[in-house]
Amino acid sequence: MTTTSPATTTRTESTAVRTGVWFVGARGSVATTAVAGCAAVTAGLHPATGMVTETPPFADTGLPALSTLVFGGHDTASCPLPKRAEALTAAGVLPHGLPTAIHAELAAADQEIRAGGPQPGDTRSDEELIDSFADDLRDFARRTGVARTVVVNLSSTEPQPAPDDPRLPASSLYAAAAIRAGCSYVNFTPSTGLRTEALTAAAEAGGLPHAGRDGKTGQTLLRSVLAPMFVQRALTVRAWSGTNLLGGGDGAALADPAAAAAKNAGKERVLADTLGTAPEGEVHIDDVPALGDWKTAWDHIAFDGFLGSRMILQTIWQGCDSALAAPLVLDLVRLVARAHEAGLSGPLPGLGFYFKDPDGGPAALAEQFEALLAFAERLKETR
Amino acid sequence: MTTTSPATTTRTESTAVRTGVWFVGARGSVATTAVAGCAAVTAGLHPATGMVTETPPFADTGLPALSTLVFGGHDTASCPLPKRAEALTAAGVLPHGLPTAIHAELAAADQEIRAGGPQPGDTRSDEELIDSFADDLRDFARRTGVARTVVVNLSSTEPQPAPDDPRLPASSLYAAAAIRAGCSYVNFTPSTGLRTEALTAAAEAGGLPHAGRDGKTGQTLLRSVLAPMFVQRALTVRAWSGTNLLGGGDGAALADPAAAAAKNAGKERVLADTLGTAPEGEVHIDDVPALGDWKTAWDHIAFDGFLGSRMILQTIWQGCDSALAAPLVLDLVRLVARAHEAGLSGPLPGLGFYFKDPDGGPAALAEQFEALLAFAERLKETR
Amino acid sequence: MTTTSPATTTRTESTAVRTGVWFVGARGSVATTAVAGCAAVTAGLHPATGMVTETPPFADTGLPALSTLVFGGHDTASCPLPKRAEALTAAGVLPHGLPTAIHAELAAADQEIRAGGPQPGDTRSDEELIDSFADDLRDFARRTGVARTVVVNLSSTEPQPAPDDPRLPASSLYAAAAIRAGCSYVNFTPSTGLRTEALTAAAEAGGLPHAGRDGKTGQTLLRSVLAPMFVQRALTVRAWSGTNLLGGGDGAALADPAAAAAKNAGKERVLADTLGTAPEGEVHIDDVPALGDWKTAWDHIAFDGFLGSRMILQTIWQGCDSALAAPLVLDLVRLVARAHEAGLSGPLPGLGFYFKDPDGGPAALAEQFEALLAFAERLKETR
Amino acid sequence: MTTTSPATTTRTESTAVRTGVWFVGARGSVATTAVAGCAAVTAGLHPATGMVTETPPFADTGLPALSTLVFGGHDTASCPLPKRAEALTAAGVLPHGLPTAIHAELAAADQEIRAGGPQPGDTRSDEELIDSFADDLRDFARRTGVARTVVVNLSSTEPQPAPDDPRLPASSLYAAAAIRAGCSYVNFTPSTGLRTEALTAAAEAGGLPHAGRDGKTGQTLLRSVLAPMFVQRALTVRAWSGTNLLGGGDGAALADPAAAAAKNAGKERVLADTLGTAPEGEVHIDDVPALGDWKTAWDHIAFDGFLGSRMILQTIWQGCDSALAAPLVLDLVRLVARAHEAGLSGPLPGLGFYFKDPDGGPAALAEQFEALLAFAERLKETR
Repeated sequence: MTTTSPATTTRTESTAVRTGVWFVGARGSVATTAVAGCAAVTAGLHPATGMVTETPPFADTGLPALSTLVFGGHDTASCPLPKRAEALTAAGVLPHGLPTAIHAELAAADQEIRAGGPQPGDTRSDEELIDSFADDLRDFARRTGVARTVVVNLSSTEPQPAPDDPRLPASSLYAAAAIRAGCSYVNFTPSTGLRTEALTAAAEAGGLPHAGRDGKTGQTLLRSVLAPMFVQRALTVRAWSGTNLLGGGDGAALADPAAAAAKNAGKERVLADTLGTAPEGEVHIDDVPALGDWKTAWDHIAFDGFLGSRMILQTIWQGCDSALAAPLVLDLVRLVARAHEAGLSGPLPGLGFYFKDPDGGPAALAEQFEALLAFAERLKETR
Repeated sequence: MTTTSPATTTRTESTAVRTGVWFVGARGSVATTAVAGCAAVTAGLHPATGMVTETPPFADTGLPALSTLVFGGHDTASCPLPKRAEALTAAGVLPHGLPTAIHAELAAADQEIRAGGPQPGDTRSDEELIDSFADDLRDFARRTGVARTVVVNLSSTEPQPAPDDPRLPASSLYAAAAIRAGCSYVNFTPSTGLRTEALTAAAEAGGLPHAGRDGKTGQTLLRSVLAPMFVQRALTVRAWSGTNLLGGGDGAALADPAAAAAKNAGKERVLADTLGTAPEGEVHIDDVPALGDWKTAWDHIAFDGFLGSRMILQTIWQGCDSALAAPLVLDLVRLVARAHEAGLSGPLPGLGFYFKDPDGGPAALAEQFEALLAFAERLKETR
Repeated sequence: MTTTSPATTTRTESTAVRTGVWFVGARGSVATTAVAGCAAVTAGLHPATGMVTETPPFADTGLPALSTLVFGGHDTASCPLPKRAEALTAAGVLPHGLPTAIHAELAAADQEIRAGGPQPGDTRSDEELIDSFADDLRDFARRTGVARTVVVNLSSTEPQPAPDDPRLPASSLYAAAAIRAGCSYVNFTPSTGLRTEALTAAAEAGGLPHAGRDGKTGQTLLRSVLAPMFVQRALTVRAWSGTNLLGGGDGAALADPAAAAAKNAGKERVLADTLGTAPEGEVHIDDVPALGDWKTAWDHIAFDGFLGSRMILQTIWQGCDSALAAPLVLDLVRLVARAHEAGLSGPLPGLGFYFKDPDGGPAALAEQFEALLAFAERLKETR
Repeated sequence: MTTTSPATTTRTESTAVRTGVWFVGARGSVATTAVAGCAAVTAGLHPATGMVTETPPFADTGLPALSTLVFGGHDTASCPLPKRAEALTAAGVLPHGLPTAIHAELAAADQEIRAGGPQPGDTRSDEELIDSFADDLRDFARRTGVARTVVVNLSSTEPQPAPDDPRLPASSLYAAAAIRAGCSYVNFTPSTGLRTEALTAAAEAGGLPHAGRDGKTGQTLLRSVLAPMFVQRALTVRAWSGTNLLGGGDGAALADPAAAAAKNAGKERVLADTLGTAPEGEVHIDDVPALGDWKTAWDHIAFDGFLGSRMILQTIWQGCDSALAAPLVLDLVRLVARAHEAGLSGPLPGLGFYFKDPDGGPAALAEQFEALLAFAERLKETR
């Protein structure tokens, strides 16, 4: 699969208009990698490996060019992006020399990061917080002159909210602010975000497209290609067990059992949806700080073949979480911004390819890829 | 995915007519397992796990019922099938008690096995051998009254033939005999079989359908689902290395480097076809008699993600070769016999799902499954 | 390493005297495999693979011959041993045909199994239970005429007892009964057993030897050979993570977090003892009934090499739990009975080779093997 | 295991005298990493992870301090060491910033590298070449004033020499030159080096110690700890299969089947020596340039347990070849130089811990470590 040549890219993408990208969790590893990677690819320093939207099927879909993306966001942390990029370089996530080469872009994005909240001791009501976040979004758009903004949730996974909690989880406050400010929305985490009846309805009413939930970057990606194989070959999966080892912030957040439960719900859904029934087996997420931003996922699948013969498939996936996530985030930003421009609203099931817990559509990756290609065709037709 | 209920099966399959199944290599593990498994499933002793043709999409395609299959074949070995089945039971391939329960069916198939050839010291010409084999096929059909016969090559992998060898390889002699006797043909091995210009033309001229080559049962099956994932996600595969450990007759045959080369050609084709270019990496096939009929395949895939990050996927597949192959063989027999009945001739690219080195069609398993479903629809339309 | 020839065995082992073996958990998989295996090896049906006491260093240590062992035990379950053996055969643990071949020995052992307790609703005090169990042991010795009896705890892992519980855990009631009846004692599980100050003192006072705790059959066995390698090579282990998948009764018992905690304490001890400090990483034990008596342990070890280079070792151990445990149980029975005969009393640190959580001695397997050989020498000297 | 504190190091090591280290293959990855690592540890930039001679048992053995080592060597390549170090940094072998920090030490070593030979078209006889190399060694000693020099073979693995080849392999020319110039010798590769009758005798006659052959850095290291476990537990290893993937120069050199054969002989020896018989199974070494200096070794061990139960252990070792080898090379340099100083001559079986194919001594790592500690004691006694 060859990537689009620069000439083609220039011809087919809109460059006159600029698009805002607002990361909730803007100082995290994924956001930093996305900002750095966008600058690196734009500057021709690296190929666009991992970005599906840079492949030929998306050549004439009118996606915003990477060079037209303007980054900002919320984060309660204060470490400047150039320094975060240096840390990611030391950790082997970003290539050496990159933070220096694209220092200007990192510094520019850093200028557009606001503190967000709620901070500990914050006495503001949900409504006040939403208003405050929405103001930040409107200010950003005004200041930068972007035509439209996509808000992307990249913050640490929240515990699953208690059913009787009167307050909205933080992820939903940001989602509500996006809707209020007329922005489209992407939830790359398993947190609630826009997945409440009221917020989904508000997005629909506002004519705003959105996509989610929980980016599919490793173990679940594999599961969504392997589970269909067993079904297609009429093999009976008896047990599917898995363990994930990950360091970094994600590992620490998921060491909270409630957060892990939120994450695992998505992981197990793909098996139940594909196999027709949930097999035996558990999924563990371990915080292993020594691994830094690298993660390892081991899966053990016990299945029956002809005449009850017992067989085993095991997989070991060793990847860099931020490097897996960032190109998908850039893909989603471009696709959702373009959908917004094209007048599409509500959930976009054509983007299920990117998510563990998608807004409808098929569960098998091959079918999700077909749906994504169909979505690209639809974008072409609206030009 | 639920299997077809017996009631449905009875309703939709042709039972009045009997279909011949002629195995070249009729005393081997795969053939023995296929005969035993067909009897076991027919008798309701085991579910049809691993048989795709027993799943709902094939319910109304008019496939011959398993109970209507009549087995025979060629083999230079002389160990009777019931004894072979006992050995496979001791090796953990067949369930305990099964050889006793289906002794009659094994003995009946054993009666229909002929010696084949060429034996060492055999002075017959290619033409004489083809005639002799074709006579065996015609005698079988006459004696058993089957409406048509499918010849299936299950014999040990041959070395790749020298380009200037004046004689046909044994697999092609049997393929020629199938055509001469008006039988359809399936090549489940990497040997040449029908893959010569003259034989392919003869099959076409005879109005005979055929399918091949090299059943896709383990490592290549996995590769045909994993390689598309890397392409769809725009990840760059740098190296794909693999080692297969297998005992049994197959392991010994493939210890011959020329035979292994034939097998590996198919394995590597799926990568080159899917990825667009052949990655670095080798494939080894080791004969490990201690493993008996069980095989283990380890794959190591080095790929690049965003900004050149280096990642690794490893897979370990532990399966029973005969139990993986036999249900696919029964599937192919039914599909090719039905295609013959429906008047289809020549290669059947809709069956690429089953092969490492198919007669055209896509290389990705998901697309091959779509093609197989389309083939099933076509069969329905011809009823 | 060659096994002792039968001639040697006869010459060096005591056969005139019979030794009692009393299993707490006498109808479980390990006990059934031990009884069946002892009979099979005695009858010459199978080699003594996995029995260290059948190797040359133990030839002249005066161990009781396998043919002189007389089995009995406690179990609250009621399924007869011959039937349990059939079930283990169907599960692939015992070889086919074995239960029939040694039916007499299984039936004889079955006759010597008593109900034990405490049963649900049992109102007997701890003292009454201990007396009752000790009576069973004395009756067994009287009836069978054995010179001495070794009590072996093979029952399901108990939850770690609460510190303020006035009652003894069941495993300690059986251990107390062993002491009261003048029997030596082996604890092959992580349960408390004899590990209380009072019981240890009582064993010492009674001149009774004992050994424990928690048989080392898989993941921890590996850890006790791999951890020393890292130390000897001055490599820094950063994180050691593991997941165990096991079905059968053990898997179900260990699905109880309190029982798993008892088990994991032993597993982690070997790392801390060997590495000098406990590395990052967790251990999971998953109940996967589909695996039956087979277990799989995956370990992932992240370590630092020269100049901080990050490296990884992963291990996958696939074994049959009962087949791993049973020969060690027979070894321990022989060694502890012989120690009793030789007048040794109290804990036997020379047997740390067999345990996750031994009674003192080194933690590295190689040193434990040295200690075991020294113990064998000591036995020779007492003849 | 704690490393020796700097205070202790200063107290116990000789610093007045300087020791020469002459690498054959001085511009290769291992040599570059050894020079860079020695400087980095001396400067306190990194701990001495992986260096066994920096652990407490070696504190009072009188080893030359790292700061007293003076590097030089032969290499037919011409890329300067500082540039090689930059390349190793880009490949993730050396830490970022290190080449700059220790530029002076790299440049100094680079000044002491001579071209060696034989170059293509070189018409010099074996004797002339040996003389020329010995002159280089004497010049180095004179110029630098080192008290003695250790020659270490780190060059690419040679094909196994033909028995009737009248000329010595290059590795033996260098070994002969070492002896002629009065230097001790270490062979870290599987090439012939000093392993000829004549050269071994010459070393003995010259009173020179030597050690070899083939550094044990990965798969064989593991095998030397795992194989004894199977023996100690009386488990029967049926088959031991392995595949190594490695890039870099080593991978390319070993893609030559004759070179791979030399390497594999050592790998298989440890199994035969430990298990008493060579199990089934092959070892593959694949050149996978995409892996760079990182190597992956997969081992699959099929073994029998009690009553013939079939079990499997698999290991996956992912390491950086140069980072594994370099600290061992520095260890060997110090130990052999000290042995030379102490008047030891001939092969040093106490150093078998470091080699796949050692000069006698035990094959199990634990016993080799004991032998190494005994060797350290012997050094202490000679102070």
